[in-house]
Amino acid sequence: MSVTADLYVEVKNFYARQMRVLDDLDIEQFTATFTEDGSVAHPHRGEKVEGREAMRAKMTSMLPMYEGLVTRHWFDHFLIEPAGAAGDDGLRVTYYSLVTQTDTEDEMRFFSSSSVEDRMVRDEKGELRIRERVIHRDNPRHGRVI
Amino acid sequence: MSVTADLYVEVKNFYARQMRVLDDLDIEQFTATFTEDGSVAHPHRGEKVEGREAMRAKMTSMLPMYEGLVTRHWFDHFLIEPAGAAGDDGLRVTYYSLVTQTDTEDEMRFFSSSSVEDRMVRDEKGELRIRERVIHRDNPRHGRVI
Amino acid sequence: MSVTADLYVEVKNFYARQMRVLDDLDIEQFTATFTEDGSVAHPHRGEKVEGREAMRAKMTSMLPMYEGLVTRHWFDHFLIEPAGAAGDDGLRVTYYSLVTQTDTEDEMRFFSSSSVEDRMVRDEKGELRIRERVIHRDNPRHGRVI
Repeated sequence: MSVTADLYVEVKNFYARQMRVLDDLDIEQFTATFTEDGSVAHPHRGEKVEGREAMRAKMTSMLPMYEGLVTRHWFDHFLIEPAGAAGDDGLRVTYYSLVTQTDTEDEMRFFSSSSVEDRMVRDEKGELRIRERVIHRDNPRHGRVI
Repeated sequence: MSVTADLYVEVKNFYARQMRVLDDLDIEQFTATFTEDGSVAHPHRGEKVEGREAMRAKMTSMLPMYEGLVTRHWFDHFLIEPAGAAGDDGLRVTYYSLVTQTDTEDEMRFFSSSSVEDRMVRDEKGELRIRERVIHRDNPRHGRVI
Repeated sequence: MSVTADLYVEVKNFYARQMRVLDDLDIEQFTATFTEDGSVAHPHRGEKVEGREAMRAKMTSMLPMYEGLVTRHWFDHFLIEPAGAAGDDGLRVTYYSLVTQTDTEDEMRFFSSSSVEDRMVRDEKGELRIRERVIHRDNPRHGRVI
C-alpha cells in the first residue's frame, strides 16, 4: 500500500464534495467531477452511460424520481490503490455506499446499498476526476463483488 | 485545501470523542467540547441555544426523549477548511449526520438525517472547541444547505 | 494522542479489508485477520469464542442465518490508542458498528448497532492482527459502553 495519508485525505475530500453536489441534484457540477469521457455503469441492470453529455441527459430524465425527497449517500470502507501503467497517477478506489431518503414528513428510509469501484485520474490541473464508475447494487442474487 | 492529514485525523478524533459523550447523554462532558460561549442552532425550528449553561439546561430538559433508547450519531463526508482572519487557527467543518435509535426490544429506527456546519477554535491549551454549530435537518421543504 | 496519520490510514485500511471478507462470508480470510489465539466476545449474550479454529466452527454454524441476504457493516468514530507495555506496538481501537441486510427483493433493514473494542498487535511480518474483539450490542438494558 503505497498511498500516503495526504492522498487518502485528498481522495476523501473529493468524495465529500462530489456527494454534496450529487445529493443537491446539481447535475452540472456532478458531471464535472468526471472526465469528459467518464462513465457510470450499473451492471445489475445492464446499463452503462458514457460521457458527460450522456450522463447529464440520463440524470435529467431521472430527476422526477428525486422530487420531494432529500437523498443522502453514506460511504465507508475506502480502499485506495495505485492503478495504471508505470509513471501513471491513476487510482482504483472501492467503497461501500448506503443511500437514504427523507420525505417532507421527516420519514427516512433506506434506498439502496451498493459497493462501488471507481477509476480516477488527474486532469491537466492536477484535480482528481473519475474516468469510470461501476456500481454493484447489493442483492444476494447478484453475488458480492468488491 | 491547506489542511494536513494530521489535522484531518485530529478533527476526526475530536468528533469520535464528542459523539461518545453525546450518545452517552453525558451533558457535562458534551458541553465541555464547546467554548464557554458556544452555540447550537437548529434553524429549521428557529432555535439557537447560546452558552454552555443554556445548553446544559436545554439538554437536561430533553433527556426524557432519550430514555429507554440508545441513540447513535453517524457522520460522513467531512470537509475541513481554515476559517478566520490571517493568523487565526479557526476551522469550518461540515459533514453529514445520520441519527439512529435502538430500543429495549433491539428494534432500530432512523431518527433523523442532517447536514452540520461547525466553527471550531483552539482553547488556551490548544484543544479544539466548537464555537458555533448549525444543524440543518434534512427535509425537502428546507432545501439542501451545505 | 501519539498516533500518526499514516497509522490511522493503515488501521482504516485494515478494517476496509476485514469487512469485505466478513460481508463476503469468507470465513477463512476473515479468521486470518485475527491472531491464532484471537478471540471474539459478545458480552450481552455471555459468549466468547477463542482461537481461529473455534471462530471458524462458530461462523460456519451461523452461515444459514446469512443465506439469501447481503450483510454490510458500517463503521464510524474510530479512536486508535497505543495500548501495551513500553516498546510494545499494540493498539486499542474502538468504533461504532451498524449492520444492515438486503434481501433478494431489494428490501433493506437494520440488523444491529454496536460499539466495538479491538486489541491489535503486529504479526511477525508487521501486519496488523486482532487479538481480542469485544462487541457491545446497543440496547438500553446493557448500558452504553465505549
